[in-house]
Amino acid sequence: MNKPKKVAILTAGGLAPCLSSAIGSLIERYTEIDPSIEIICYRSGYKGLLLGDSYAVTPKIRENAALLHKFGGSPIGNSRVKLTNVKDCIKRGLVQEGQDPQKVAADQLVKDGVDVLHTIGGDDTNTAAADLAAFLAKNDYGLTVIGLPKTIDNDVFPIKQSLGAWTAAEQGAQYFQNVVAEYNANPRMLIVHEVMGRNCGWLTAATAMEYRKLLDRSEWLPEIGLDRAAYEVHGVFVPEMEIDLAAEAKRLREVMDKVDCVNIFVSEGAGVDAIVAEMQAKGQEVPRDAFGHIKLDAVNPGKWFGEQFAEMIGAEKTLIQKSGYFARASASNVDDIRLIKSCADLAVECAFRRESGVIGHDEDNGNVLRAIEFPRIKGGKPFDIDTPWFVQMLAGIGQSKGARVEVSH
Amino acid sequence: MNKPKKVAILTAGGLAPCLSSAIGSLIERYTEIDPSIEIICYRSGYKGLLLGDSYAVTPKIRENAALLHKFGGSPIGNSRVKLTNVKDCIKRGLVQEGQDPQKVAADQLVKDGVDVLHTIGGDDTNTAAADLAAFLAKNDYGLTVIGLPKTIDNDVFPIKQSLGAWTAAEQGAQYFQNVVAEYNANPRMLIVHEVMGRNCGWLTAATAMEYRKLLDRSEWLPEIGLDRAAYEVHGVFVPEMEIDLAAEAKRLREVMDKVDCVNIFVSEGAGVDAIVAEMQAKGQEVPRDAFGHIKLDAVNPGKWFGEQFAEMIGAEKTLIQKSGYFARASASNVDDIRLIKSCADLAVECAFRRESGVIGHDEDNGNVLRAIEFPRIKGGKPFDIDTPWFVQMLAGIGQSKGARVEVSH
Amino acid sequence: MNKPKKVAILTAGGLAPCLSSAIGSLIERYTEIDPSIEIICYRSGYKGLLLGDSYAVTPKIRENAALLHKFGGSPIGNSRVKLTNVKDCIKRGLVQEGQDPQKVAADQLVKDGVDVLHTIGGDDTNTAAADLAAFLAKNDYGLTVIGLPKTIDNDVFPIKQSLGAWTAAEQGAQYFQNVVAEYNANPRMLIVHEVMGRNCGWLTAATAMEYRKLLDRSEWLPEIGLDRAAYEVHGVFVPEMEIDLAAEAKRLREVMDKVDCVNIFVSEGAGVDAIVAEMQAKGQEVPRDAFGHIKLDAVNPGKWFGEQFAEMIGAEKTLIQKSGYFARASASNVDDIRLIKSCADLAVECAFRRESGVIGHDEDNGNVLRAIEFPRIKGGKPFDIDTPWFVQMLAGIGQSKGARVEVSH
Amino acid sequence: MNKPKKVAILTAGGLAPCLSSAIGSLIERYTEIDPSIEIICYRSGYKGLLLGDSYAVTPKIRENAALLHKFGGSPIGNSRVKLTNVKDCIKRGLVQEGQDPQKVAADQLVKDGVDVLHTIGGDDTNTAAADLAAFLAKNDYGLTVIGLPKTIDNDVFPIKQSLGAWTAAEQGAQYFQNVVAEYNANPRMLIVHEVMGRNCGWLTAATAMEYRKLLDRSEWLPEIGLDRAAYEVHGVFVPEMEIDLAAEAKRLREVMDKVDCVNIFVSEGAGVDAIVAEMQAKGQEVPRDAFGHIKLDAVNPGKWFGEQFAEMIGAEKTLIQKSGYFARASASNVDDIRLIKSCADLAVECAFRRESGVIGHDEDNGNVLRAIEFPRIKGGKPFDIDTPWFVQMLAGIGQSKGARVEVSH
Repeated sequence: MNKPKKVAILTAGGLAPCLSSAIGSLIERYTEIDPSIEIICYRSGYKGLLLGDSYAVTPKIRENAALLHKFGGSPIGNSRVKLTNVKDCIKRGLVQEGQDPQKVAADQLVKDGVDVLHTIGGDDTNTAAADLAAFLAKNDYGLTVIGLPKTIDNDVFPIKQSLGAWTAAEQGAQYFQNVVAEYNANPRMLIVHEVMGRNCGWLTAATAMEYRKLLDRSEWLPEIGLDRAAYEVHGVFVPEMEIDLAAEAKRLREVMDKVDCVNIFVSEGAGVDAIVAEMQAKGQEVPRDAFGHIKLDAVNPGKWFGEQFAEMIGAEKTLIQKSGYFARASASNVDDIRLIKSCADLAVECAFRRESGVIGHDEDNGNVLRAIEFPRIKGGKPFDIDTPWFVQMLAGIGQSKGARVEVSH
Repeated sequence: MNKPKKVAILTAGGLAPCLSSAIGSLIERYTEIDPSIEIICYRSGYKGLLLGDSYAVTPKIRENAALLHKFGGSPIGNSRVKLTNVKDCIKRGLVQEGQDPQKVAADQLVKDGVDVLHTIGGDDTNTAAADLAAFLAKNDYGLTVIGLPKTIDNDVFPIKQSLGAWTAAEQGAQYFQNVVAEYNANPRMLIVHEVMGRNCGWLTAATAMEYRKLLDRSEWLPEIGLDRAAYEVHGVFVPEMEIDLAAEAKRLREVMDKVDCVNIFVSEGAGVDAIVAEMQAKGQEVPRDAFGHIKLDAVNPGKWFGEQFAEMIGAEKTLIQKSGYFARASASNVDDIRLIKSCADLAVECAFRRESGVIGHDEDNGNVLRAIEFPRIKGGKPFDIDTPWFVQMLAGIGQSKGARVEVSH
Repeated sequence: MNKPKKVAILTAGGLAPCLSSAIGSLIERYTEIDPSIEIICYRSGYKGLLLGDSYAVTPKIRENAALLHKFGGSPIGNSRVKLTNVKDCIKRGLVQEGQDPQKVAADQLVKDGVDVLHTIGGDDTNTAAADLAAFLAKNDYGLTVIGLPKTIDNDVFPIKQSLGAWTAAEQGAQYFQNVVAEYNANPRMLIVHEVMGRNCGWLTAATAMEYRKLLDRSEWLPEIGLDRAAYEVHGVFVPEMEIDLAAEAKRLREVMDKVDCVNIFVSEGAGVDAIVAEMQAKGQEVPRDAFGHIKLDAVNPGKWFGEQFAEMIGAEKTLIQKSGYFARASASNVDDIRLIKSCADLAVECAFRRESGVIGHDEDNGNVLRAIEFPRIKGGKPFDIDTPWFVQMLAGIGQSKGARVEVSH
Repeated sequence: MNKPKKVAILTAGGLAPCLSSAIGSLIERYTEIDPSIEIICYRSGYKGLLLGDSYAVTPKIRENAALLHKFGGSPIGNSRVKLTNVKDCIKRGLVQEGQDPQKVAADQLVKDGVDVLHTIGGDDTNTAAADLAAFLAKNDYGLTVIGLPKTIDNDVFPIKQSLGAWTAAEQGAQYFQNVVAEYNANPRMLIVHEVMGRNCGWLTAATAMEYRKLLDRSEWLPEIGLDRAAYEVHGVFVPEMEIDLAAEAKRLREVMDKVDCVNIFVSEGAGVDAIVAEMQAKGQEVPRDAFGHIKLDAVNPGKWFGEQFAEMIGAEKTLIQKSGYFARASASNVDDIRLIKSCADLAVECAFRRESGVIGHDEDNGNVLRAIEFPRIKGGKPFDIDTPWFVQMLAGIGQSKGARVEVSH
């Protein structure tokens, strides 16, 4: 046992319904296991680390840390700052010209006397921290880095379930339970529910499943229009599954003719390759974010599906609805609160053993919860379209399962 | 007493969280007062009336009508069809060339043997029905038309509270309770919450008030970022109140400097005149809908505020969030269920007295609930910025009250 | 139309989840139909009427009357005072020796200038008011009395659904959803859920049905004891159905042997005749309340069933749980709020027509909602054990339907 | 690290809203840390251990263990069997004449190959397990016993917060939120809310505090009887605080005169000494349970308070309400689910270190969460009447704080 004297916490990347609860769980666990261990939280992720700007976790914060489970987002703040994006760090005034952000960050950790750094973020956030540890190791500064896998996409190798994804699916389902009522605000209505998720369809599929659970619990009265057939999910399109547009358009035109509306759930990243190809063919520049990912907000597959399908299925009106921010900024539901706590409690255990890695249920180790070695952590895990509940759902909505598609990241 | 033998119900215009519950309340009241009275519901508003396409309300529907209170939207369907928009009716194939939609509709009512027509819609829906009654009266066909005032904008003269507006404010507040957590997903973040409402700021103001009630019930921990000051509503902009952009930008820049974020609630129609003026100055065509209203969806005041303000208050990132569809497509909350029933019960009473009008609390008659004479029904009632709770809210968030602005419709 | 100038409201008898909402609904309806009509509320039922002690309904109360829907009980107070129980009225100091309470009450109504008296109570409360009206009529004082049928027993001729009964069943079900977990706090456990209801088994049957809806929505894991068979309702005993004790004991012993527990729902009045017969055989005095009803609290059928059955089915431990007060003192659920408003809105309509009676869905008139003539109002309506959902439930739990029993009142 | 091959779980003693969630948390944690470790659950506590009757935790149970968090009670069953109560074990047919239950239990554990025994129960359940371990140690069988502190009384030395107590307080508050509406079902009404808790007033005080939080969130309308003064807690009586009956009666008579009702929260064990003294003075036998505790159910302090106080404060009617079973049989709320998981996660950590003790926040060690040595575990921790929130509550309801009373156990 090599008990840390001082630990730091930082959150980074986009929001997910787990950041606040994860901060709360870590503070609560350290406080109940050994309140003598100092805790600081860097403000706005790596920005705060570079500037040496952090919250000191006072006794009052420790006593009231349970409040953090009731909030979404990250009270200590996120930012898209990446230590390897030197140009961006300079532009933001976080480092001087000629400085290496990684060196500045490392020095700050040493200056702050941090033994263990807990990062709550996506694969890029966690691997950036691992690089820091490696950097410091060369200067024999023993920094232990323990990551918690935050992403609503649930697309991190080899992690069975990432933090916040369940809540995002449940919130997206509740979002659609409201907006679906637009199905007959206009005859022959197409509603496109665009669900967040760059290159992974897990959230889209899980949101559709959660929404159909809500339909299972409703009572219907088709004689006066309360007909499950019109409230149903008619199509689920994920990047990992080939879409035979002609066949699907034919199937969905029949649905339109029958129930005068069509509701489809579409991954933000479904069909992106086709759209990007179309844009590049027209010589248009494809927008990318600080991490080099295609800036999906600017590329609008939902709108593209609306147009492509709207005409082919004879829709009179199209409504495109994005549940992204509503879902990802929510507070954690009870299942995620327990999953987060499972990981945070082990994270503190590992801190005492100075065991680095990303805490998660290791799919290559019988789903055992452990500190997964950083080198094995990778984003872009595709949604497995052979997952039983997905196969069952497609059958339930009469959609044939397309072939598996390799999604590029 | 001149008991009707057969009544018809139709819903029209955009959705609001009252249509389904209003249909249910009318069916339940007729059934419990006199089950011998036949009820039909025209499908998709005036479209169904023109085509003679309607649901017959069977004993099974009567027995299960309570289910309708659990759904949003309008199970019997809405459409934007307007009897006076002859060109549009012909284009939709609802009438032949040379036919007068009003005549076709009137004939259908006579053919269906309808004594009383209940219309649930905005001011244009209800006045269109009044015109029908006047038309039929000339041919001695005594059609009684009783309107129920559906609009989330709460902007109908002389009606104190329109149906569905309370629920829309509550749902918009819950929507923002999720997305506000984006306030620190990026340093110096501006979140623009764009609330539906063409030329009336009531829904924007009421949504802000409902959201602040949620803040009142939360506990805070500013020491670690859970600071009400960052979750607060920092500005509320409604069409009826002059906005001193320079003064507001100065005030909000100070908020940004202090809490690193600014959250403003903006009516869909706030500042539209300024935007439309800017577009017309640049010779751009202004998009309008079937009713001649400015098609707000195409004109984006939220985006304009984001840009105008973003620069003036030094925001680093702007997030524009629209709660419109989420709020208006929801099922009615308990307060609206009771308001709807108050009106529906009186509507049936008036039907027995063949008393036409729009049921509402008549602001020019001591707020008495009565069938308000059609000629006195007009849309475009401005939000009264001297309403005590609004004055109190502005004071609470440190925003000075601008002068009253006459809003053109 | 003979518009009242001043109306009075009083609540009496035991609590039911409708009194507060009924008061609120009446105040709201009078205020929205004609705010010039004065309203007073007699405090603690007939006690306040005899003492001339009442609340004046001020503008502030009218404006905030909606709050009343959020409370159980009766804010203006109930009491068991009965005008015909002269001895009791004297004992309570409400009238002097030699005074006739009915005369005192009538004089008070005249003195207060009340045109319409709304009574919210059981059959005895409402018929007492009818007697008052008849008394006043002889002195040509035109008092209109309009009763609202409050009882959780749902046992009033000829009223289809009394106010508060639905909520009581739902609350009783939620009560049992907690306490059922005692089923294995001890091996071979008998839980007797005693449900309020003097001589009518409707509430017991409806509570069992609502509880089984909660079971339908649960997921089970019998492999580790989460077995619906143990949480199930194993027996429902109502006064109107003959119980073959030997056969039921045999059936329930088999259940005990199989799932190590038995849960039975028992009407407070089930088997009371057998118990009372047993007490009178032993020369014991049977306790009665001010209305002459058997004071069920003192006679404990639940305990009697626990002993009678406990031995015959080999129970090791018996737990007797009464959900009565928890259920009857609750605020109204949404279904009851709507039923109450249906009746209150018509009550005000009738007040304008000076039409006396008890507002209810008249089972002898096709369930039409109307002011039912007082002479036809009678308590003691037995629960119809041939009701489809009851027959279906008995089949679902494997309990054979006993013969119909005439219940004495 | 000395990884166990096989662990067993048993629950014993009365119910508390934590047993099912604790079983679920242990199964989930073992499964996610090392699914190769076998788990069995003894059925009905020590009864199952003596009979060798246990559930094997199958892969299906492991996969669905999360369901256990949604149920109250203990799906694997409890019983009051105590290994040291030889006579009782023989009477129940669990051991033969002449057999020592402890020996039979120890042999069973050896036979089942159990390395670690997790007991979820009160102080007597956990110390009984410690005795077993000591017994086995003499026969060099290394059994690790890890207890989880289940009690709604929150009265275990030196544990800061026992499992299930928070939920019990919250449920008791919701129970009273219903029944308080009886406050004016009769003039001058005394409602005695009797809260479970043998010799510790924590639950009574905490239930009163949770109930007053509900009052803080309500809106009032005193002009028509919705007066917080009548819904308020007027007195809180706990065993650890001296009650000056005369002074309190005087104070509460004034409350009765003012608001026509009095609501008091009374610990099941408050004033028991005075009652027991009175019963022994009259030569009556005092009932005791298998653990030698006074069988409080038979001694009714609530009723005694009702009579003693009813007369002295001039109550016309007394209603005694017990929330005990409703509160203790409930499923865990979110705060308890997290507390239970904190303890269960550490319990599994300790199992790997073969570290025995009761998991809890050790009040004599800065509230650190650890396996507290069995010898230091004792029941009967008195409620500290100097706790700030209790002192504040008494001041808030105008009740003076009595002197501290030593409570015998």
